[in-house]
Amino acid sequence: MSDAKKELTIGMLGCGVVGSQVVRLLLEDSGDFAARSGAKLTLKKIAVRDAKVKREKVPANLITTDADSVVDDPAIDIIIEVMGGLEPARKLLLRAIGNGKSIITANKALLAHHGAELFEAADKNGVDLYYEAAVGGAIPILRPLRESIVGDHVYRVMGIVNGTTNFILTKMDESGSEFAVALKEAQDLGFAEADPTADIEGHDAAAKAAILAGLAFHTRVNIKDVSCEGITRISARDIAVARDIDHVIKLLAIAEINGKGEISVRVHPTLISRQHPLAAVRGSFNAIFVEAESAGELMFYGRGAGGAPTASAILGDLIAIARNKTRGGEGHGESDYAELRFADRGQVLTRYLIRMDVADKPGVLAAIAQIFASNSVSIETVRQSGHDASAELIVMTHQAPEGSLAATVAAIAKSDVVKSVESVIRVEGATR
Amino acid sequence: MSDAKKELTIGMLGCGVVGSQVVRLLLEDSGDFAARSGAKLTLKKIAVRDAKVKREKVPANLITTDADSVVDDPAIDIIIEVMGGLEPARKLLLRAIGNGKSIITANKALLAHHGAELFEAADKNGVDLYYEAAVGGAIPILRPLRESIVGDHVYRVMGIVNGTTNFILTKMDESGSEFAVALKEAQDLGFAEADPTADIEGHDAAAKAAILAGLAFHTRVNIKDVSCEGITRISARDIAVARDIDHVIKLLAIAEINGKGEISVRVHPTLISRQHPLAAVRGSFNAIFVEAESAGELMFYGRGAGGAPTASAILGDLIAIARNKTRGGEGHGESDYAELRFADRGQVLTRYLIRMDVADKPGVLAAIAQIFASNSVSIETVRQSGHDASAELIVMTHQAPEGSLAATVAAIAKSDVVKSVESVIRVEGATR
Repeated sequence: MSDAKKELTIGMLGCGVVGSQVVRLLLEDSGDFAARSGAKLTLKKIAVRDAKVKREKVPANLITTDADSVVDDPAIDIIIEVMGGLEPARKLLLRAIGNGKSIITANKALLAHHGAELFEAADKNGVDLYYEAAVGGAIPILRPLRESIVGDHVYRVMGIVNGTTNFILTKMDESGSEFAVALKEAQDLGFAEADPTADIEGHDAAAKAAILAGLAFHTRVNIKDVSCEGITRISARDIAVARDIDHVIKLLAIAEINGKGEISVRVHPTLISRQHPLAAVRGSFNAIFVEAESAGELMFYGRGAGGAPTASAILGDLIAIARNKTRGGEGHGESDYAELRFADRGQVLTRYLIRMDVADKPGVLAAIAQIFASNSVSIETVRQSGHDASAELIVMTHQAPEGSLAATVAAIAKSDVVKSVESVIRVEGATR
Repeated sequence: MSDAKKELTIGMLGCGVVGSQVVRLLLEDSGDFAARSGAKLTLKKIAVRDAKVKREKVPANLITTDADSVVDDPAIDIIIEVMGGLEPARKLLLRAIGNGKSIITANKALLAHHGAELFEAADKNGVDLYYEAAVGGAIPILRPLRESIVGDHVYRVMGIVNGTTNFILTKMDESGSEFAVALKEAQDLGFAEADPTADIEGHDAAAKAAILAGLAFHTRVNIKDVSCEGITRISARDIAVARDIDHVIKLLAIAEINGKGEISVRVHPTLISRQHPLAAVRGSFNAIFVEAESAGELMFYGRGAGGAPTASAILGDLIAIARNKTRGGEGHGESDYAELRFADRGQVLTRYLIRMDVADKPGVLAAIAQIFASNSVSIETVRQSGHDASAELIVMTHQAPEGSLAATVAAIAKSDVVKSVESVIRVEGATR
């Protein structure tokens, strides 16, 4: 082929935990990569903020603090972005795309905030923009969604996409400990950052939810379109109640389409049955569960973070882009032809498990049942257990619109017979 | 692009359970497919053996009994082969490839027997040959192995790739029934054929093992290279013993590479820990567990058979090929650059669980332990339970070469103190 290239030159932006692994693998296995991609892959420049940081196995002569010189270098064909953050990553990638370079990025926040701008630029310039590492680390999920299930109709994606929160929830389930204790343990073991906000408040999962939803529904989804609730309010008692009814609590990123062709994208702690394949995903592992019309149920499981797993996904993208270039043609671009609307959040169907402390006296249940009825929310099960002068009442609803469920909880909280609403957790995992 | 086409014409070979679903989806969703693939996809001809068979939702005017007229039709761009069997499928596909048509096939037996010939022909003629539906039905596993994990080093693939045997083994585990009873139930429910030989003897799994191994290790693997043992000898007692030690028995297709860079590919009933992700794969579901150097552990789970799931995988391939054609260039070809050797079967490392009836008298254990020692096989655990004049002895070995383990079993069978060797099952799932 006339436009085939036999040597491809790579520039990298950033060189932290993931970047160092990419460098190591590229230098160690260059022969294998050449055989698999059909081209010699040469790493030419690595832009970093501080050139003085010691980086093992990273050749010092590749390092530069001038990121512009990497994205502007006419000899560089492919940019790997592992610097993270919104700026200057966004500007650098747009400039690289404008210069005709193909892009690999692991930056989920950037894609969830500025994906539309980047994808459009890539499309306009006829370059590849790959980002398998941005969701689920080493788990191949984006390419399957984009290329394998593309002939099918996905109607729901539910993912455990944040290893930190899954580690914490698994610990709480195994040991019965409270959130703060499990978080501390996660921090001590390196599974949670010193500032864990982005993980435990669900922001990281929300960025990934936006990316997954965009691919599943062929529609641009921004992180602003994602409703988000973290796990900080989950208590040991919530976990114990879940166990009693043979469920587990997971922080799920959920993207689904309703009967009217509207999509909803959300992140929240979720009760799912222990029989559900996602329930067996423990510790820092990630998994994405996909329901599609013809394919049925699919699940993709693996390590969602870490230097080597993330580097593995980046190298898969690198070889894919290299193959596109050596064989001519470009890869599969983004597809946003559907441009679906977002469902009104109040109309999204879900189920609630509501745990409350109530006065232990006759007529309480009747009063509460009346509140549910007047909001047209039907009750599936009620469990009551007394202690001292009060009693714990646990209500599992049938499926109902989020708005009606929320209104029910608001009314319950104001009721005379209810001392406090202790927790409200959504329940998912029923089949369509 | 100059060679881009905006309409692609499809010919189909065969129209059974899978083929009918492909037709239904293609005709129902033609607008979606056009948007996703960038081309109008038109189904022009369907070759069948018997035109008189009633096929719902399949337009009669597309049907022909002349398969040659499909593969020779110059207006047809893509051939979907769902007829199954080795001949005439092989000849027809070679002829279609020679005529410059791209191929999608779900025919695992054909690929496992004649893959090398077909892949070479496709490569020579510059056409795509895709076969995602051949392993794991709807589960996207081939494309991830070929394109996502391609930058990594896979060292083991273990798959539950046959739904019939997994259904039977799950039934036996749940109900304690014997193999024959569970098989009958599977047949009654449509999960096993009237002649279940290909499934229960492991031949179907062996064909899929060959395909998986080829992709994982970039080496041509023929079904003749796969050692194969079915599940017909698994008894209710074996299942109960597995349960006692917190294991399950699964028919696994295993492909792995040893420290010398040699590969082994095999299918056999296998004990795995209930904590292993594969243990939770129940009923007719399939899953493929992949261990790679950088990515770590990955698992792909879903429906391994059935008309709609298999059709979903075929349509994913169809859109991929259509995108290749509309954007110019061809897809990722097979990669067999590695040409690894096969390990000597006797040298493959595994572990055995050996269950035997022994005389219930002093010195028996010493005599048996001596046999293990003289074959250099070390014992991990021994469990003995007496009943009447004999006792059941269950030995779990440490890892040892298959040849030494087999020699040990042969020697045990001849020993005076052993009445019978009741069963021998391999144990896998330990990490590297």
